[in-house]
Amino acid sequence: MSVPVAYQGNTSAAIAEWLNKGDNAWQLTASTLVGLMSVPGLVVLYGGVVKKKWAVNSAFMALYAFAAVWICWVGWAYKMSFGEKLLPFWGRGGPALDQAYLIGRAALPATAHYHADGTTLETAMIEPFFPMATVVYFQCVFAAITLVLVAGSLLGRMSFLAWMLFVPLWLTFSYTVGAFSVWGGGFLFQWGVIDYCGGYVIHIPAGVAGFTAAYWVGPRTMKDRERFPPNNIMFTLTGTGLLWMGWAGFNGGGPYAANVDASMAVLNTNICTAASLVVWTCLDVIFFNKPSVIGAVQAVITGLVCITPGAGNNFLLYFLIMHASCMPRVLINLRY
Amino acid sequence: MSVPVAYQGNTSAAIAEWLNKGDNAWQLTASTLVGLMSVPGLVVLYGGVVKKKWAVNSAFMALYAFAAVWICWVGWAYKMSFGEKLLPFWGRGGPALDQAYLIGRAALPATAHYHADGTTLETAMIEPFFPMATVVYFQCVFAAITLVLVAGSLLGRMSFLAWMLFVPLWLTFSYTVGAFSVWGGGFLFQWGVIDYCGGYVIHIPAGVAGFTAAYWVGPRTMKDRERFPPNNIMFTLTGTGLLWMGWAGFNGGGPYAANVDASMAVLNTNICTAASLVVWTCLDVIFFNKPSVIGAVQAVITGLVCITPGAGNNFLLYFLIMHASCMPRVLINLRY
Amino acid sequence: MSVPVAYQGNTSAAIAEWLNKGDNAWQLTASTLVGLMSVPGLVVLYGGVVKKKWAVNSAFMALYAFAAVWICWVGWAYKMSFGEKLLPFWGRGGPALDQAYLIGRAALPATAHYHADGTTLETAMIEPFFPMATVVYFQCVFAAITLVLVAGSLLGRMSFLAWMLFVPLWLTFSYTVGAFSVWGGGFLFQWGVIDYCGGYVIHIPAGVAGFTAAYWVGPRTMKDRERFPPNNIMFTLTGTGLLWMGWAGFNGGGPYAANVDASMAVLNTNICTAASLVVWTCLDVIFFNKPSVIGAVQAVITGLVCITPGAGNNFLLYFLIMHASCMPRVLINLRY
Repeated sequence: MSVPVAYQGNTSAAIAEWLNKGDNAWQLTASTLVGLMSVPGLVVLYGGVVKKKWAVNSAFMALYAFAAVWICWVGWAYKMSFGEKLLPFWGRGGPALDQAYLIGRAALPATAHYHADGTTLETAMIEPFFPMATVVYFQCVFAAITLVLVAGSLLGRMSFLAWMLFVPLWLTFSYTVGAFSVWGGGFLFQWGVIDYCGGYVIHIPAGVAGFTAAYWVGPRTMKDRERFPPNNIMFTLTGTGLLWMGWAGFNGGGPYAANVDASMAVLNTNICTAASLVVWTCLDVIFFNKPSVIGAVQAVITGLVCITPGAGNNFLLYFLIMHASCMPRVLINLRY
Repeated sequence: MSVPVAYQGNTSAAIAEWLNKGDNAWQLTASTLVGLMSVPGLVVLYGGVVKKKWAVNSAFMALYAFAAVWICWVGWAYKMSFGEKLLPFWGRGGPALDQAYLIGRAALPATAHYHADGTTLETAMIEPFFPMATVVYFQCVFAAITLVLVAGSLLGRMSFLAWMLFVPLWLTFSYTVGAFSVWGGGFLFQWGVIDYCGGYVIHIPAGVAGFTAAYWVGPRTMKDRERFPPNNIMFTLTGTGLLWMGWAGFNGGGPYAANVDASMAVLNTNICTAASLVVWTCLDVIFFNKPSVIGAVQAVITGLVCITPGAGNNFLLYFLIMHASCMPRVLINLRY
Repeated sequence: MSVPVAYQGNTSAAIAEWLNKGDNAWQLTASTLVGLMSVPGLVVLYGGVVKKKWAVNSAFMALYAFAAVWICWVGWAYKMSFGEKLLPFWGRGGPALDQAYLIGRAALPATAHYHADGTTLETAMIEPFFPMATVVYFQCVFAAITLVLVAGSLLGRMSFLAWMLFVPLWLTFSYTVGAFSVWGGGFLFQWGVIDYCGGYVIHIPAGVAGFTAAYWVGPRTMKDRERFPPNNIMFTLTGTGLLWMGWAGFNGGGPYAANVDASMAVLNTNICTAASLVVWTCLDVIFFNKPSVIGAVQAVITGLVCITPGAGNNFLLYFLIMHASCMPRVLINLRY
C-alpha cells in the first residue's frame, strides 16, 4: 500500500501529526465566509434598509461591533465561553493570544464533566484536526455576528458612543454566558441540549437583547415611524446575498471538519432558505396581489436563522419551534 | 512509513473511507463561489445595468429564480438530469432529499451504458471522493445560474408573475434535457460530446432560451429603447467582479476534485477573461477613441463564458467556436 | 494501519503523488479571496471614495489594471519575478503558459544560491504540495493588487490612456525587481531579508510609486481639493469589507499550505486590523468628539497593511517599523 508523499507523516512543526489540511482549509474558508456575512454583508444590508439619514451610522455600528468583538474575544471572552469552568454557566476569562496555546491542537470545550461514578467522561471534548487558532477565529466571527444582529434592533435609535460601550459589555456579560452554558461545557451542555450551529447561542440571545434594548431605548420618533423608506434596496440585496451564501460557512463550519455532516448542513441550509423565499413570495402574491422584495429578504433571513440550530440534525419539530421563536427578531429588525 | 493521524482510516460515520476532505472542502467552496455569482452577483449586476425603474424588479427576478430552482432541483430535477435513464435525453425524476442517498458517496451519472458486446462499460461513472449532498449542491447552483442568465434577456420585458411560472417550467422541461443528454448519461454523453463545464448545458441553452423568449415577449417600448441609461454602474461592477472571481469555483469545481486540472482550469479562466478585457478595451480606444466600462463588462462576461467549455481541455478550435456562438447571448443580455 | 481510499497513492495524472488536496484547495481559495480584494473590492472602494465625477473612471482604472497584469504576468513577468537569475535583482523573463510547466509540482524560487563552499545550498527552494499553476495564480493576484494600490494615488489625476501604458511598464520594470530581489532568489533573499507576505514587495513599492507618480502628475485642481465629498460611502464600505475578509487569503495563503502558520497568520491579521479600527475610532472620539467612518476605513487599511510583513512571524519591532513606513501611503491614497 502506498500513501502519497503529501499525506505521509513528518516532523515539521507547521505540519503536525494531528493536522488535516482539508479540515483546516475548510474551517478557515468557512470562518471567512461567516466574516463576509457581517463585513460587508450586514454592514451594507443595514446601510441599505434604513432611512438615508441613518445609513452611514447604521453601517458603522455594524463595522465597529465586528472590530470591537475581536479585541474582547482574544483578550478574555473566548476563554469565558470555551475555557475552564468558573461557574456552571461561565468560564474563567483570560487571553487567547499565547502562541503555544494557539498552535496546539484544538480542543473544546475545556471543561470535562464526569458521570456520577466519577470516572466516566460525560461529554467528550471535541478535538478537531486543526489548531486552536482556527477555532478561535471561527468562534470569533460567530460572536461578532451576534453583536451585529443585536445592532439591527437599534439602528436609528441609539447614539454611537453608547453603542461603543454596549458592545464589549454585552459580549462579556451576556454572550459568554450563553456560549459557555450551551457549547462551552456549562450546565445546558451537560444536560444534553443540542444547538447545532447557533439557534440558542446566537439567534435567541440576539433576539432577546434586541427586543429588550429596543424597549428600553424607546421607539423612533413618530415622524420617522410614519415614513421609513429604505435608503437603497440594491445594498440590502447585496447584503442579503452575502448572508445567504456566507451561511454555507456558518452551518457548514459547524462540524469542525469538511465531512459528510458539513455537506448535509450546507444543503439543508439552502433548501430551507429557498423554501422560505418561495413560500413567502407566493403568500405575498396571494394575499397582497404582488410580490415584495423586502418580504423576500425577510424570508431569506428567517429561513437561514431557522435552519441553523438543526441544519445537521434533521429534527422537524425543533425546526418548527425555532421558526416560531425567531420570527419576532426578524420582524423587529426589518419592519420597525 | 507513517501516516498522520488525521489521514488514517477510521470508522466514524461522518468520516467515510472514501472521503477526501481536501476535495470536499474545495467542492463546497467552489459551489459557494458559484452561488455568489448569482446571489448577489447577477442580482446587483442586473439591478445596476438596467434603467432605474426596472432595477428592483430585475434584481428580484434573479433572486427568485435562484430560490425557485433549489426547490425544483431537490424535488425532482436533479434526478431528471443525473438519475436513471427514462429516455435517451431524459432521466427519471424524483426527490434528492433522502438522507441515505445524500450521505452516500457521490456517483454520477447514474445511467450505465454498455458497449455493443453487452459487458464492457462504455463510459464509466465518476465517483468523486465526497458525498452525494455535495454534488447536488454544486449542480444546483449551476442550474440556478442558468435560469438567472435567461432572466438577463427578459429584464424589463416580462411580468414577475409570468417569471414565477417560467422558472420551474423551463428548468423542468428544458434544462434537465440538456443536462441529462450531455452530462447525465444521455445520448450526447454516450457519443463522446465533451462539455468541460457548461458551454452546451448552460450557456447555449441560456442563450437560445433568452433569444427565443425575448422574441416572443417582444421588444421594449420605443421610448425605453431610445434611452437606456444604466441605473448604477458601480453595482454592475460589483456584480461583474463577483462573476469573475466566482468563476474560479465554476470552472475550478468542474473536475470534482482539488487536483491539477482544477488549478489549470482556474488559471485558464483568468487568462482568457483578462485577455478579453484588454483586447476589447484596446479596440474601444482604437475605433471609438475612448475606453468603455460597459464594453469592459461585456468583455469579462464573454471571456468567462467562452473559456468555460474548454477550461480544462486546451482545445483552441473548440474555444473559438464557442466564442462565436456565445456572442449573441452576451449582446442580447447587455445591449438591448 | 489503514489509510482511507481517498488518501492512498495512485497513478492518475491529475492526482500526482506530491499533491495535497487540502493545500491546493486552500491555496486556490486564498488566491480567489485576494482576487476579490481587487475585483470588486478596490474597484468599488475607489468608485465610492472619490468625487462622483471620477467614480466610474477610478473603478475602471482598478479593473483594467487587474486584467492587464494577468496578461503580462503569464506572458513574461512571473519568470522575471520567480524564474532563473538574470541579474542579482532580476529574473529571466519568459512565458508561464506551457502546460508541462504548469502541471508540474510548484517550486520557487527557481534560483539556487550556494554557500561559499560551493556545495551547501544557502536557501532551499520551497516545494509546495500543489502544481505550478496554483503558484502562478496566487502570485498573479498579488502583483495585480499592487498595481491597483498604485492606482489609488492617481485617481482623478491621470488620463486613462496613460494608465493603460503605465500598468505593463511599471509591472515589468519595477514590481518584478522587488519581487525577484526579496522573494524570487535575488540578493535581498540571499541576505536573509524576511517579508512574510508583501510588506517590502507590495506595500512599500506601491507606496513609493504612488507617492512619486502623484508628485510627477501634480496635484488635483484647487477646486477639487477644496471640496472632495466621497461619491458613496456604502460602496467604500463594501470594498473595505472585501479587503478585510479577503486578507485572510492574502496572509493565510503566505505559507503555501493549509497549515498551522496559515491559521496563525489569519488570526493575527484580524486582531491587528480590529485593534487599528478600535484605537482609531477612540482617538477620533477623544480628539474630535465624534467617530468617523472614513477614519475607520483608513484604520482597517492601515491595520491590514501593517500586519502583512509579519503576520506569520511574531516580530513586534518589525511590525512597528512597517506600521510607520506604511502610513504615508494610506494617507496619500485616501486623504489627498
